[in-house]
Amino acid sequence: MTNDTQFSSILLGNAVKEFSKLPGIGKRTALRLALHLLRQSKEDVENFGNTFIALRNEIQYCNVCHNISDTEVCQICSDTRRDATTVCVVENINDVLSIENTQQYKGLYHVLGGVISPMDGIGPADLAIDQLIQRAETGNIKEIILALSPTMEGDTTNFYLYKKLAKFAIEISTIAKGISIGNELEYADEITLGRSIINRTPYKIN
Amino acid sequence: MTNDTQFSSILLGNAVKEFSKLPGIGKRTALRLALHLLRQSKEDVENFGNTFIALRNEIQYCNVCHNISDTEVCQICSDTRRDATTVCVVENINDVLSIENTQQYKGLYHVLGGVISPMDGIGPADLAIDQLIQRAETGNIKEIILALSPTMEGDTTNFYLYKKLAKFAIEISTIAKGISIGNELEYADEITLGRSIINRTPYKIN
Repeated sequence: MTNDTQFSSILLGNAVKEFSKLPGIGKRTALRLALHLLRQSKEDVENFGNTFIALRNEIQYCNVCHNISDTEVCQICSDTRRDATTVCVVENINDVLSIENTQQYKGLYHVLGGVISPMDGIGPADLAIDQLIQRAETGNIKEIILALSPTMEGDTTNFYLYKKLAKFAIEISTIAKGISIGNELEYADEITLGRSIINRTPYKIN
Repeated sequence: MTNDTQFSSILLGNAVKEFSKLPGIGKRTALRLALHLLRQSKEDVENFGNTFIALRNEIQYCNVCHNISDTEVCQICSDTRRDATTVCVVENINDVLSIENTQQYKGLYHVLGGVISPMDGIGPADLAIDQLIQRAETGNIKEIILALSPTMEGDTTNFYLYKKLAKFAIEISTIAKGISIGNELEYADEITLGRSIINRTPYKIN
């Protein structure tokens, strides 16, 4: 399928064009998706289209943690059953979802909106770092977990945050790095394997 | 990402649900697409959603060839520069697009809407075969090209159509089957290779 494919219907052509604007969707897949929609009921397709319009027009970001939200304060921040004394700092919304999926964490979050990356022109002022300091200043937080990616930029950001947060009586921790569970040792990269030996933990029977 | 993933936003959850209804789109991809839409302008997303609604509500099928169309007679059938004496019979709309993309065909089409397949309960009456006979009866058609898939069902349908069309003074042809251009002989299946030897063509310098 070439870029100048002529469709017998302008409507179909438009639908293919819109689908192929999405990341990872080529012209061929876009056509398959458009033809799929044609086989659905009018109500279903109306619902399909309007869902995205509603998402874009009505979405808000939580005033507290900057997570995506339908309200001024998100469901997680306003959930009184959660531990408001622990805050997990993450790079973006996906990371909140990933951690929520583990069902291992019952504290709150703070979405930075990125990591410090001079190469990409992203400095501390571009991230929600001041807002994190303000949350720390309230004195309600006992522990801040830095859950940024173990990359150069993530480590830089961790170090910057640690320096900024050190003056508060708050425990600062980072997520454990090591061999992925279920992975063969021989396929682990040597830096991870080396670190996992240095940071070995006492053997426990689960 | 599990099926009961809790999103902090119902709007986001709905968008992910709608995307993952599409064929070949899982929850993870659906989330990536929904977050992508959030980064686009409100106008773009409005346009995105409304395009599919318009497609579904306003699409028509050509009265002549049953191809997808914005009007009662499609752009191909109403194009006077095309050769109206040749009709290419195809299974579905995708096949029209595929053949159009080759830019080698300037005749008209007839979309059957499937092939005869007793296993799937599809008989001749479920397909646009009567309409093809009616087109043949007008006496305007000189050649009908059967361009169905070279499968058991396609061959059955070819045979059925040939029997129905034999009484007209119309040349009936089928698309050439053989080794794909650019393919190595050793990877061709033996039935295709065998047929391509039987149906060998005189050598021509292009």
